[in-house]
Amino acid sequence: MNQINRVAIVGGTHGNEFTGAYLIQKFAQFPDLITRQSFETVTLLANPNAFAAGRRYVEKDLNRCFLKQDLQDPTLRSYEELQAKSIQNTLASNRDKQADFILDLHSSTANMGLTIILVNSHPLNLRLAAYLSQINPLVKVYRCSFKSIEENPFVNSLCELGFAIEVGPIAQGLLKAKLFQQTEELVYAVLDYLERFNQGGIPSTKETLILYDHLSVVDYPKKPDGTIFGMIHPELQDKDYQALNPGDPIFITLDNKIIFYEGASTVWPIFINEAAYYEKGIAMCFTQRQQINI
Amino acid sequence: MNQINRVAIVGGTHGNEFTGAYLIQKFAQFPDLITRQSFETVTLLANPNAFAAGRRYVEKDLNRCFLKQDLQDPTLRSYEELQAKSIQNTLASNRDKQADFILDLHSSTANMGLTIILVNSHPLNLRLAAYLSQINPLVKVYRCSFKSIEENPFVNSLCELGFAIEVGPIAQGLLKAKLFQQTEELVYAVLDYLERFNQGGIPSTKETLILYDHLSVVDYPKKPDGTIFGMIHPELQDKDYQALNPGDPIFITLDNKIIFYEGASTVWPIFINEAAYYEKGIAMCFTQRQQINI
Repeated sequence: MNQINRVAIVGGTHGNEFTGAYLIQKFAQFPDLITRQSFETVTLLANPNAFAAGRRYVEKDLNRCFLKQDLQDPTLRSYEELQAKSIQNTLASNRDKQADFILDLHSSTANMGLTIILVNSHPLNLRLAAYLSQINPLVKVYRCSFKSIEENPFVNSLCELGFAIEVGPIAQGLLKAKLFQQTEELVYAVLDYLERFNQGGIPSTKETLILYDHLSVVDYPKKPDGTIFGMIHPELQDKDYQALNPGDPIFITLDNKIIFYEGASTVWPIFINEAAYYEKGIAMCFTQRQQINI
Repeated sequence: MNQINRVAIVGGTHGNEFTGAYLIQKFAQFPDLITRQSFETVTLLANPNAFAAGRRYVEKDLNRCFLKQDLQDPTLRSYEELQAKSIQNTLASNRDKQADFILDLHSSTANMGLTIILVNSHPLNLRLAAYLSQINPLVKVYRCSFKSIEENPFVNSLCELGFAIEVGPIAQGLLKAKLFQQTEELVYAVLDYLERFNQGGIPSTKETLILYDHLSVVDYPKKPDGTIFGMIHPELQDKDYQALNPGDPIFITLDNKIIFYEGASTVWPIFINEAAYYEKGIAMCFTQRQQINI
Protein backbone atom coordinates (compact mmCIF):
# COMPACT_ATOMS: atom_id res chain seq x y z
CA MET A 1 0.00 0.00 0.00
CA ASN A 2 1.04 3.56 -0.69
CA GLN A 3 2.13 6.09 1.82
CA ILE A 4 -0.56 8.23 3.47
CA ASN A 5 0.24 11.84 2.68
CA ARG A 6 -2.76 13.72 3.92
CA VAL A 7 -5.20 13.04 6.75
CA ALA A 8 -8.40 15.05 7.08
CA ILE A 9 -10.16 15.39 10.44
CA VAL A 10 -13.73 16.50 9.87
CA GLY A 11 -16.10 17.72 12.60
CA GLY A 12 -19.42 19.51 12.78
CA THR A 13 -20.80 17.56 9.83
CA HIS A 14 -23.87 17.76 12.03
CA GLY A 15 -23.94 21.23 13.56
CA ASN A 16 -25.40 20.20 16.92
CA GLU A 17 -22.79 17.51 17.56
CA PHE A 18 -20.46 19.76 19.50
CA THR A 19 -17.79 17.23 20.49
CA GLY A 20 -16.39 17.01 16.97
CA ALA A 21 -16.98 20.65 16.14
CA TYR A 22 -15.08 21.91 19.21
CA LEU A 23 -12.30 19.38 18.69
CA ILE A 24 -11.85 20.86 15.22
CA GLN A 25 -11.66 24.33 16.78
CA LYS A 26 -9.11 23.09 19.31
CA PHE A 27 -6.97 21.43 16.64
CA ALA A 28 -7.13 24.55 14.49
CA GLN A 29 -5.88 26.59 17.44
CA PHE A 30 -3.21 24.08 18.51
CA PRO A 31 -2.10 22.43 15.25
CA ASP A 32 0.92 20.83 16.91
CA LEU A 33 -1.45 18.37 18.57
CA ILE A 34 -2.32 16.77 15.24
CA THR A 35 0.96 17.31 13.40
CA ARG A 36 2.83 14.14 12.54
CA GLN A 37 6.11 13.85 10.69
CA SER A 38 5.13 11.64 7.79
CA PHE A 39 1.86 13.24 6.66
CA GLU A 40 -0.03 16.49 6.62
CA THR A 41 -3.13 16.80 8.82
CA VAL A 42 -5.94 19.16 7.84
CA THR A 43 -9.09 20.02 9.74
CA LEU A 44 -12.51 20.90 8.43
CA LEU A 45 -15.60 22.25 10.17
CA ALA A 46 -17.98 20.68 7.68
CA ASN A 47 -21.24 22.53 8.31
CA PRO A 48 -20.42 25.96 9.75
CA ASN A 49 -23.91 27.39 9.24
CA ALA A 50 -25.58 24.51 11.05
CA PHE A 51 -22.99 24.75 13.84
CA ALA A 52 -23.66 28.47 14.18
CA ALA A 53 -27.39 27.72 14.40
CA GLY A 54 -26.86 24.81 16.82
CA ARG A 55 -28.80 22.52 14.51
CA ARG A 56 -28.03 19.23 12.81
CA TYR A 57 -28.45 20.86 9.43
CA VAL A 58 -29.92 23.94 7.82
CA GLU A 59 -31.81 22.43 4.88
CA LYS A 60 -30.73 18.83 4.48
CA ASP A 61 -28.66 16.29 6.41
CA LEU A 62 -25.13 16.94 5.12
CA ASN A 63 -24.05 13.38 5.87
CA ARG A 64 -26.60 12.13 3.35
CA CYS A 65 -25.42 14.45 0.56
CA PHE A 66 -22.38 12.56 -0.69
CA LEU A 67 -23.94 10.17 -3.17
CA LYS A 68 -21.75 10.41 -6.27
CA GLN A 69 -24.74 11.14 -8.49
CA ASP A 70 -25.85 13.98 -6.19
CA LEU A 71 -22.39 15.51 -6.10
CA GLN A 72 -22.47 15.56 -9.90
CA ASP A 73 -25.98 16.98 -10.15
CA PRO A 74 -25.81 20.72 -10.85
CA THR A 75 -29.51 21.18 -10.03
CA LEU A 76 -28.96 20.34 -6.36
CA ARG A 77 -28.34 23.66 -4.68
CA SER A 78 -29.48 23.55 -1.06
CA TYR A 79 -26.93 24.81 1.46
CA GLU A 80 -25.81 21.33 2.41
CA GLU A 81 -25.76 20.04 -1.17
CA LEU A 82 -23.46 22.91 -2.13
CA GLN A 83 -21.41 22.33 1.00
CA ALA A 84 -20.99 18.66 0.08
CA LYS A 85 -19.70 19.63 -3.36
CA SER A 86 -17.30 22.11 -1.79
CA ILE A 87 -16.02 19.45 0.64
CA GLN A 88 -15.57 17.02 -2.23
CA ASN A 89 -13.57 19.71 -4.02
CA THR A 90 -11.38 20.28 -0.99
CA LEU A 91 -10.79 16.69 0.04
CA ALA A 92 -11.19 14.53 -3.03
CA SER A 93 -10.95 16.31 -6.38
CA ASN A 94 -7.39 17.50 -6.62
CA ARG A 95 -4.89 14.66 -6.77
CA ASP A 96 -2.17 16.79 -5.16
CA LYS A 97 -4.36 17.87 -2.31
CA GLN A 98 -6.66 14.95 -1.78
CA ALA A 99 -7.07 13.34 1.60
CA ASP A 100 -5.83 9.77 1.86
CA PHE A 101 -7.63 9.19 5.12
CA ILE A 102 -10.78 10.88 6.46
CA LEU A 103 -11.82 10.81 10.09
CA ASP A 104 -15.35 12.21 10.55
CA LEU A 105 -16.32 13.04 14.15
CA HIS A 106 -19.92 12.51 15.24
CA SER A 107 -21.82 12.17 18.49
CA SER A 108 -25.02 10.42 19.44
CA THR A 109 -27.66 10.57 22.16
CA ALA A 110 -27.45 6.76 22.17
CA ASN A 111 -25.00 4.90 24.37
CA MET A 112 -22.58 4.30 21.51
CA GLY A 113 -19.39 4.49 23.55
CA LEU A 114 -16.61 5.19 21.07
CA THR A 115 -17.95 3.61 17.91
CA ILE A 116 -15.99 3.26 14.72
CA ILE A 117 -18.32 3.21 11.74
CA LEU A 118 -16.75 1.31 8.88
CA VAL A 119 -18.29 1.81 5.47
CA ASN A 120 -16.05 -0.71 3.77
CA SER A 121 -13.76 -3.57 4.67
CA HIS A 122 -10.43 -2.18 3.57
CA PRO A 123 -7.72 -4.18 5.39
CA LEU A 124 -6.08 -1.07 6.85
CA ASN A 125 -9.41 0.17 8.22
CA LEU A 126 -10.02 -3.24 9.78
CA ARG A 127 -6.56 -3.48 11.27
CA LEU A 128 -6.74 0.04 12.66
CA ALA A 129 -10.19 -0.67 14.12
CA ALA A 130 -8.87 -3.85 15.73
CA TYR A 131 -5.95 -1.92 17.19
CA LEU A 132 -8.19 0.82 18.63
CA SER A 133 -10.60 -1.67 20.17
CA GLN A 134 -7.62 -3.46 21.67
CA ILE A 135 -6.21 -0.39 23.41
CA ASN A 136 -9.60 0.92 24.62
CA PRO A 137 -12.52 -1.33 25.62
CA LEU A 138 -14.99 1.52 25.00
CA VAL A 139 -14.24 1.21 21.27
CA LYS A 140 -16.83 -0.78 19.30
CA VAL A 141 -16.76 -1.44 15.58
CA TYR A 142 -19.93 -1.12 13.54
CA ARG A 143 -19.85 -1.96 9.85
CA CYS A 144 -22.42 -0.40 7.60
CA SER A 145 -21.55 -1.77 4.19
CA PHE A 146 -22.89 -0.52 0.91
CA LYS A 147 -23.37 -2.64 -2.19
CA SER A 148 -21.22 -0.14 -4.03
CA ILE A 149 -19.42 3.08 -3.26
CA GLU A 150 -22.10 4.82 -5.34
CA GLU A 151 -24.69 4.10 -2.67
CA ASN A 152 -22.73 5.61 0.21
CA PRO A 153 -24.08 9.09 1.08
CA PHE A 154 -21.60 9.81 3.91
CA VAL A 155 -18.60 12.13 4.03
CA ASN A 156 -16.50 8.99 4.27
CA SER A 157 -17.54 7.96 0.75
CA LEU A 158 -14.96 10.50 -0.48
CA CYS A 159 -12.06 8.28 0.53
CA GLU A 160 -11.54 4.55 0.88
CA LEU A 161 -9.45 4.92 4.02
CA GLY A 162 -10.92 6.27 7.22
CA PHE A 163 -14.21 6.10 9.06
CA ALA A 164 -16.61 8.03 11.21
CA ILE A 165 -16.33 8.02 14.99
CA GLU A 166 -19.68 8.12 16.77
CA VAL A 167 -19.39 8.91 20.49
CA GLY A 168 -22.11 8.87 23.11
CA PRO A 169 -24.32 9.11 24.99
CA ILE A 170 -24.38 12.89 24.81
CA ALA A 171 -27.24 15.30 24.18
CA GLN A 172 -27.14 17.49 21.12
CA GLY A 173 -25.83 21.01 21.51
CA LEU A 174 -23.47 20.55 24.43
CA LEU A 175 -20.02 19.37 25.47
CA LYS A 176 -19.19 16.73 28.05
CA ALA A 177 -15.58 17.00 29.15
CA LYS A 178 -14.99 13.31 29.69
CA LEU A 179 -16.33 12.27 26.30
CA PHE A 180 -14.50 15.17 24.66
CA GLN A 181 -11.21 13.95 26.13
CA GLN A 182 -11.89 10.30 25.22
CA THR A 183 -12.66 11.30 21.64
CA GLU A 184 -9.55 13.45 21.51
CA GLU A 185 -7.39 10.55 22.72
CA LEU A 186 -8.92 8.32 20.06
CA VAL A 187 -8.02 10.85 17.34
CA TYR A 188 -4.41 10.91 18.55
CA ALA A 189 -4.33 7.10 18.58
CA VAL A 190 -5.48 7.09 14.94
CA LEU A 191 -2.86 9.64 13.93
CA ASP A 192 -0.11 7.78 15.78
CA TYR A 193 -1.12 4.54 14.11
CA LEU A 194 -1.03 6.11 10.66
CA GLU A 195 2.39 7.60 11.43
CA ARG A 196 3.71 4.16 12.28
CA PHE A 197 2.04 2.72 9.22
CA ASN A 198 3.94 5.22 7.05
CA GLN A 199 7.14 4.35 8.86
CA GLY A 200 6.55 0.66 8.28
CA GLY A 201 6.15 -0.05 11.98
CA ILE A 202 2.51 -0.93 12.45
CA PRO A 203 2.00 -2.28 15.94
CA SER A 204 0.97 -5.88 15.97
CA THR A 205 -2.65 -6.46 16.91
CA LYS A 206 -4.60 -9.50 17.82
CA GLU A 207 -5.81 -11.25 14.71
CA THR A 208 -9.50 -11.16 15.49
CA LEU A 209 -11.99 -8.33 15.61
CA ILE A 210 -15.53 -8.16 16.98
CA LEU A 211 -17.65 -6.55 14.28
CA TYR A 212 -21.27 -5.44 14.56
CA ASP A 213 -22.66 -5.72 11.05
CA HIS A 214 -25.69 -3.68 10.09
CA LEU A 215 -28.85 -5.77 9.65
CA SER A 216 -31.90 -3.49 9.60
CA VAL A 217 -33.58 -0.48 11.16
CA VAL A 218 -36.60 -0.52 13.45
CA ASP A 219 -39.18 2.27 13.65
CA TYR A 220 -41.12 3.45 16.70
CA PRO A 221 -44.68 2.26 17.29
CA LYS A 222 -46.89 4.76 15.49
CA LYS A 223 -50.53 5.68 15.26
CA PRO A 224 -52.25 5.49 11.87
CA ASP A 225 -51.62 9.22 11.41
CA GLY A 226 -47.88 8.61 11.71
CA THR A 227 -47.34 10.12 15.15
CA ILE A 228 -45.13 8.23 17.57
CA PHE A 229 -47.02 6.21 20.15
CA GLY A 230 -44.25 4.32 21.91
CA MET A 231 -40.91 4.78 23.58
CA ILE A 232 -37.82 2.63 24.01
CA HIS A 233 -38.56 0.24 26.87
CA PRO A 234 -36.62 1.26 30.01
CA GLU A 235 -34.85 -2.11 30.04
CA LEU A 236 -33.49 -1.50 26.54
CA GLN A 237 -32.50 2.16 27.01
CA ASP A 238 -28.68 2.56 26.96
CA LYS A 239 -28.20 -1.15 26.19
CA ASP A 240 -26.50 -0.55 22.85
CA TYR A 241 -24.28 -3.46 21.77
CA GLN A 242 -25.98 -5.86 24.19
CA ALA A 243 -27.81 -8.95 22.99
CA LEU A 244 -31.56 -8.59 22.42
CA ASN A 245 -33.25 -11.97 22.46
CA PRO A 246 -36.65 -13.03 21.11
CA GLY A 247 -39.25 -12.16 23.74
CA ASP A 248 -37.26 -9.30 25.31
CA PRO A 249 -39.14 -6.01 25.80
CA ILE A 250 -38.30 -3.41 23.18
CA PHE A 251 -40.91 -0.62 23.37
CA ILE A 252 -43.51 0.63 25.80
CA THR A 253 -46.45 2.49 24.34
CA LEU A 254 -47.59 5.83 25.74
CA ASP A 255 -50.46 3.95 27.39
CA ASN A 256 -48.11 1.43 29.01
CA LYS A 257 -48.38 -1.61 26.77
CA ILE A 258 -45.14 -3.51 26.37
CA ILE A 259 -44.01 -4.51 22.88
CA PHE A 260 -41.62 -7.43 22.71
CA TYR A 261 -38.93 -8.29 20.20
CA GLU A 262 -40.45 -10.99 18.04
CA GLY A 263 -37.58 -11.76 15.71
CA ALA A 264 -36.38 -15.33 15.29
CA SER A 265 -32.82 -14.79 16.49
CA THR A 266 -30.66 -12.66 18.75
CA VAL A 267 -29.66 -9.23 17.47
CA TRP A 268 -27.43 -6.49 18.91
CA PRO A 269 -29.24 -3.11 18.77
CA ILE A 270 -27.30 0.14 18.46
CA PHE A 271 -28.30 3.78 17.97
CA ILE A 272 -31.04 3.12 20.54
CA ASN A 273 -33.03 6.34 20.98
CA GLU A 274 -30.86 8.58 18.80
CA ALA A 275 -32.68 11.93 18.76
CA ALA A 276 -31.71 12.75 15.18
CA TYR A 277 -33.28 9.54 13.93
CA TYR A 278 -36.82 10.30 15.13
CA GLU A 279 -37.46 12.17 11.89
CA LYS A 280 -35.90 9.34 9.91
CA GLY A 281 -38.22 6.75 11.48
CA ILE A 282 -35.42 4.89 13.21
CA ALA A 283 -35.76 3.85 16.85
CA MET A 284 -32.62 1.70 16.69
CA CYS A 285 -30.47 -0.30 14.28
CA PHE A 286 -30.20 -4.06 14.60
CA THR A 287 -26.76 -5.53 14.07
CA GLN A 288 -25.26 -8.99 13.93
CA ARG A 289 -22.27 -9.52 16.19
CA GLN A 290 -19.48 -11.57 14.71
CA GLN A 291 -15.83 -12.24 15.26
CA ILE A 292 -13.71 -12.03 12.15
CA ASN A 293 -10.13 -12.90 11.44
CA ILE A 294 -8.04 -10.12 9.99
CA MET B 1 -59.03 31.05 48.98
CA ASN B 2 -61.43 30.48 46.15
CA GLN B 3 -62.19 27.23 44.45
CA ILE B 4 -59.99 26.19 41.52
CA ASN B 5 -62.26 25.81 38.52
CA ARG B 6 -59.86 25.32 35.68
CA VAL B 7 -56.40 23.75 35.47
CA ALA B 8 -54.27 24.10 32.35
CA ILE B 9 -51.53 21.59 31.57
CA VAL B 10 -49.13 23.09 29.06
CA GLY B 11 -46.45 21.15 27.17
CA GLY B 12 -44.21 21.73 24.20
CA THR B 13 -43.58 25.34 25.19
CA HIS B 14 -40.17 24.36 23.90
CA GLY B 15 -40.69 22.21 20.83
CA ASN B 16 -37.73 19.90 21.40
CA GLU B 17 -38.72 19.01 24.96
CA PHE B 18 -40.68 15.93 24.01
CA THR B 19 -41.64 14.67 27.48
CA GLY B 20 -44.18 17.42 28.00
CA ALA B 21 -45.29 17.57 24.38
CA TYR B 22 -46.07 13.84 24.22
CA LEU B 23 -47.75 13.91 27.64
CA ILE B 24 -50.08 16.58 26.24
CA GLN B 25 -50.80 14.30 23.27
CA LYS B 26 -51.47 11.39 25.63
CA PHE B 27 -53.80 13.46 27.83
CA ALA B 28 -55.63 14.76 24.77
CA GLN B 29 -56.18 11.19 23.64
CA PHE B 30 -57.12 9.86 27.09
CA PRO B 31 -58.82 12.81 28.82
CA ASP B 32 -60.12 10.60 31.62
CA LEU B 33 -56.59 10.48 33.00
CA ILE B 34 -56.66 14.17 33.87
CA THR B 35 -60.36 14.58 34.59
CA ARG B 36 -61.18 15.42 38.20
CA GLN B 37 -64.61 16.02 39.65
CA SER B 38 -64.19 19.52 41.07
CA PHE B 39 -62.47 21.31 38.20
CA GLU B 40 -62.03 21.27 34.47
CA THR B 41 -58.61 20.29 33.06
CA VAL B 42 -57.47 21.63 29.70
CA THR B 43 -54.33 20.79 27.76
CA LEU B 44 -52.30 22.98 25.47
CA LEU B 45 -49.45 22.16 23.09
CA ALA B 46 -47.92 25.60 23.36
CA ASN B 47 -45.57 25.76 20.39
CA PRO B 48 -46.86 23.37 17.71
CA ASN B 49 -44.62 24.72 14.92
CA ALA B 50 -41.48 24.32 16.99
CA PHE B 51 -42.59 20.82 18.02
CA ALA B 52 -43.18 19.90 14.39
CA ALA B 53 -39.69 21.17 13.56
CA GLY B 54 -38.12 19.44 16.58
CA ARG B 55 -36.65 22.74 17.71
CA ARG B 56 -36.84 24.77 20.92
CA TYR B 57 -38.46 27.62 19.01
CA VAL B 58 -38.93 28.88 15.50
CA GLU B 59 -38.03 32.56 15.89
CA LYS B 60 -37.84 33.38 19.59
CA ASP B 61 -37.91 31.47 22.89
CA LEU B 62 -41.65 31.28 23.65
CA ASN B 63 -41.00 31.02 27.37
CA ARG B 64 -39.45 34.47 27.30
CA CYS B 65 -42.40 36.08 25.47
CA PHE B 66 -44.81 36.59 28.37
CA LEU B 67 -43.67 39.95 29.72
CA LYS B 68 -46.87 41.96 30.19
CA GLN B 69 -45.50 44.84 28.14
CA ASP B 70 -44.62 42.49 25.26
CA LEU B 71 -48.05 40.85 25.31
CA GLN B 72 -49.55 44.33 24.95
CA ASP B 73 -47.18 45.46 22.22
CA PRO B 74 -48.93 45.19 18.82
CA THR B 75 -45.64 45.62 16.94
CA LEU B 76 -44.29 42.27 18.19
CA ARG B 77 -45.30 39.79 15.54
CA SER B 78 -42.82 36.92 15.42
CA TYR B 79 -44.37 33.45 15.48
CA GLU B 80 -43.72 32.98 19.19
CA GLU B 81 -44.77 36.51 20.13
CA LEU B 82 -48.10 35.93 18.42
CA GLN B 83 -48.35 32.51 19.99
CA ALA B 84 -47.80 34.03 23.45
CA LYS B 85 -50.64 36.49 22.85
CA SER B 86 -52.88 33.68 21.70
CA ILE B 87 -52.03 31.63 24.79
CA GLN B 88 -52.75 34.63 26.99
CA ASN B 89 -56.11 34.94 25.25
CA THR B 90 -56.91 31.30 25.85
CA LEU B 91 -55.73 30.97 29.42
CA ALA B 92 -55.89 34.39 31.01
CA SER B 93 -58.07 36.96 29.25
CA ASN B 94 -61.59 35.70 29.61
CA ARG B 95 -62.79 35.60 33.21
CA ASP B 96 -65.17 32.71 32.48
CA LYS B 97 -62.54 30.62 30.80
CA GLN B 98 -59.35 31.60 32.55
CA ALA B 99 -57.05 29.01 34.07
CA ASP B 100 -56.74 29.15 37.86
CA PHE B 101 -53.69 26.95 37.88
CA ILE B 102 -51.07 26.45 35.14
CA LEU B 103 -48.66 23.52 35.02
CA ASP B 104 -46.00 24.01 32.33
CA LEU B 105 -44.02 20.88 31.43
CA HIS B 106 -40.34 21.26 30.51
CA SER B 107 -37.30 19.05 30.27
CA SER B 108 -33.58 19.70 30.61
CA THR B 109 -30.31 18.11 29.59
CA ALA B 110 -29.16 18.89 33.13
CA ASN B 111 -29.67 16.46 35.99
CA MET B 112 -32.67 18.36 37.33
CA GLY B 113 -34.59 15.33 38.60
CA LEU B 114 -38.19 16.47 38.93
CA THR B 115 -37.80 20.17 39.60
CA ILE B 116 -40.64 22.47 40.50
CA ILE B 117 -39.88 26.01 39.38
CA LEU B 118 -41.72 28.48 41.56
CA VAL B 119 -41.99 32.02 40.22
CA ASN B 120 -43.70 33.37 43.32
CA SER B 121 -44.27 32.38 46.93
CA HIS B 122 -48.01 31.92 46.95
CA PRO B 123 -48.84 29.77 50.01
CA LEU B 124 -50.71 27.17 47.96
CA ASN B 125 -47.77 26.79 45.55
CA LEU B 126 -45.42 26.37 48.51
CA ARG B 127 -47.66 23.86 50.25
CA LEU B 128 -48.14 21.86 47.06
CA ALA B 129 -44.39 21.90 46.40
CA ALA B 130 -43.75 20.70 49.95
CA TYR B 131 -46.29 17.91 49.50
CA LEU B 132 -44.77 16.76 46.20
CA SER B 133 -41.23 16.78 47.58
CA GLN B 134 -42.50 14.77 50.52
CA ILE B 135 -44.03 11.99 48.43
CA ASN B 136 -41.15 11.79 45.93
CA PRO B 137 -37.50 12.39 46.85
CA LEU B 138 -36.66 13.18 43.19
CA VAL B 139 -38.71 16.37 43.54
CA LYS B 140 -36.66 19.52 44.15
CA VAL B 141 -38.01 23.02 44.52
CA TYR B 142 -36.29 25.91 42.79
CA ARG B 143 -37.57 29.43 43.32
CA CYS B 144 -36.86 32.02 40.69
CA SER B 145 -38.52 35.13 42.05
CA PHE B 146 -39.16 38.30 40.14
CA LYS B 147 -39.29 41.78 41.65
CA SER B 148 -42.74 42.14 40.13
CA ILE B 149 -45.07 40.07 38.01
CA GLU B 150 -44.27 42.50 35.17
CA GLU B 151 -40.72 41.13 34.96
CA ASN B 152 -41.73 37.48 34.59
CA PRO B 153 -41.45 36.36 30.94
CA PHE B 154 -42.63 32.77 31.50
CA VAL B 155 -45.91 31.09 30.62
CA ASN B 156 -46.49 30.85 34.37
CA SER B 157 -46.70 34.64 34.63
CA LEU B 158 -50.26 34.30 33.29
CA CYS B 159 -51.51 32.87 36.56
CA GLU B 160 -50.52 33.21 40.20
CA LEU B 161 -51.11 29.53 40.92
CA GLY B 162 -49.03 26.83 39.34
CA PHE B 163 -45.45 26.36 38.25
CA ALA B 164 -43.22 24.80 35.65
CA ILE B 165 -41.91 21.27 36.05
CA GLU B 166 -38.38 20.79 34.72
CA VAL B 167 -37.37 17.13 34.37
CA GLY B 168 -33.98 15.70 33.47
CA PRO B 169 -31.46 14.70 32.47
CA ILE B 170 -32.79 14.04 29.00
CA ALA B 171 -31.47 15.04 25.59
CA GLN B 172 -33.59 17.29 23.43
CA GLY B 173 -35.75 15.69 20.79
CA LEU B 174 -36.40 12.32 22.38
CA LEU B 175 -38.47 10.42 24.94
CA LYS B 176 -37.19 8.40 27.86
CA ALA B 177 -39.87 6.08 29.17
CA LYS B 178 -38.84 6.22 32.81
CA LEU B 179 -38.76 10.01 32.98
CA PHE B 180 -41.98 10.21 30.98
CA GLN B 181 -43.71 8.01 33.53
CA GLN B 182 -42.24 9.89 36.51
CA THR B 183 -43.42 13.19 35.05
CA GLU B 184 -46.85 11.73 34.35
CA GLU B 185 -47.16 10.55 37.98
CA LEU B 186 -46.18 14.00 39.17
CA VAL B 187 -48.92 15.59 37.05
CA TYR B 188 -51.50 13.22 38.56
CA ALA B 189 -50.21 14.03 42.06
CA VAL B 190 -50.74 17.74 41.35
CA LEU B 191 -54.27 17.18 40.03
CA ASP B 192 -55.17 14.95 42.98
CA TYR B 193 -53.86 17.56 45.40
CA LEU B 194 -55.92 20.31 43.76
CA GLU B 195 -58.98 18.06 43.86
CA ARG B 196 -58.56 17.61 47.59
CA PHE B 197 -57.91 21.33 48.00
CA ASN B 198 -61.27 22.05 46.37
CA GLN B 199 -62.91 19.49 48.58
CA GLY B 200 -61.37 21.05 51.68
CA GLY B 201 -59.28 18.03 52.40
CA ILE B 202 -55.70 19.06 51.73
CA PRO B 203 -53.38 16.37 53.00
CA SER B 204 -51.24 17.53 55.86
CA THR B 205 -47.61 18.05 54.98
CA LYS B 206 -44.53 18.61 57.01
CA GLU B 207 -44.16 22.24 57.87
CA THR B 208 -40.78 22.80 56.32
CA LEU B 209 -39.62 22.90 52.73
CA ILE B 210 -36.13 22.86 51.23
CA LEU B 211 -36.00 25.68 48.70
CA TYR B 212 -33.24 26.43 46.23
CA ASP B 213 -33.39 30.17 45.68
CA HIS B 214 -31.95 31.63 42.51
CA LEU B 215 -28.74 33.61 43.07
CA SER B 216 -26.98 34.19 39.76
CA VAL B 217 -25.99 32.68 36.45
CA VAL B 218 -22.49 31.66 35.39
CA ASP B 219 -21.21 31.75 31.81
CA TYR B 220 -18.74 29.38 30.16
CA PRO B 221 -15.08 30.36 29.83
CA LYS B 222 -14.83 32.19 26.53
CA LYS B 223 -12.18 33.47 24.18
CA PRO B 224 -12.03 37.19 23.41
CA ASP B 225 -14.05 36.54 20.24
CA GLY B 226 -16.86 35.10 22.34
CA THR B 227 -16.45 31.45 21.45
CA ILE B 228 -16.67 28.90 24.24
CA PHE B 229 -13.32 27.68 25.47
CA GLY B 230 -14.26 25.53 28.44
CA MET B 231 -16.56 22.74 29.53
CA ILE B 232 -18.23 21.78 32.78
CA HIS B 233 -15.59 19.98 34.85
CA PRO B 234 -16.30 16.21 34.93
CA GLU B 235 -16.60 16.33 38.73
CA LEU B 236 -19.40 18.90 38.49
CA GLN B 237 -21.31 17.29 35.59
CA ASP B 238 -24.69 15.92 36.79
CA LYS B 239 -24.12 17.29 40.31
CA ASP B 240 -27.14 19.59 40.22
CA TYR B 241 -28.44 20.47 43.71
CA GLN B 242 -25.17 19.40 45.36
CA ALA B 243 -23.05 21.84 47.33
CA LEU B 244 -20.26 23.60 45.44
CA ASN B 245 -17.64 24.92 47.81
CA PRO B 246 -14.96 27.58 47.28
CA GLY B 247 -11.99 25.87 45.62
CA ASP B 248 -14.02 23.12 43.95
CA PRO B 249 -13.37 22.57 40.22
CA ILE B 250 -16.06 24.07 38.02
CA PHE B 251 -14.75 24.17 34.41
CA ILE B 252 -12.00 22.59 32.39
CA THR B 253 -10.76 24.52 29.38
CA LEU B 254 -10.41 22.88 25.98
CA ASP B 255 -6.66 22.80 26.63
CA ASN B 256 -7.09 21.08 29.99
CA LYS B 257 -6.72 23.91 32.49
CA ILE B 258 -8.96 23.57 35.53
CA ILE B 259 -10.99 26.59 36.65
CA PHE B 260 -12.06 26.57 40.28
CA TYR B 261 -15.05 28.11 41.97
CA GLU B 262 -13.71 31.22 43.67
CA GLY B 263 -16.82 32.52 45.39
CA ALA B 264 -16.77 33.28 49.09
CA SER B 265 -19.47 30.85 50.14
CA THR B 266 -21.09 27.56 49.25
CA VAL B 267 -23.65 27.55 46.43
CA TRP B 268 -25.89 24.87 44.97
CA PRO B 269 -25.61 24.86 41.15
CA ILE B 270 -28.50 23.72 38.96
CA PHE B 271 -29.12 23.68 35.20
CA ILE B 272 -25.54 22.45 34.86
CA ASN B 273 -24.79 22.01 31.14
CA GLU B 274 -28.29 22.73 29.84
CA ALA B 275 -27.95 22.63 26.04
CA ALA B 276 -30.52 25.37 25.45
CA TYR B 277 -28.58 27.78 27.63
CA TYR B 278 -25.37 27.76 25.59
CA GLU B 279 -26.81 30.50 23.39
CA LYS B 280 -27.96 32.39 26.47
CA GLY B 281 -24.45 32.37 27.98
CA ILE B 282 -25.47 30.25 30.95
CA ALA B 283 -23.33 27.28 32.01
CA MET B 284 -25.29 26.82 35.25
CA CYS B 285 -27.38 28.73 37.77
CA PHE B 286 -26.17 29.19 41.33
CA THR B 287 -28.78 28.81 44.04
CA GLN B 288 -28.89 29.19 47.79
CA ARG B 289 -30.30 26.23 49.66
CA GLN B 290 -32.55 27.07 52.56
CA GLN B 291 -35.15 25.44 54.69
CA ILE B 292 -38.29 27.49 55.15
CA ASN B 293 -41.31 27.08 57.38
CA ILE B 294 -44.63 27.05 55.60
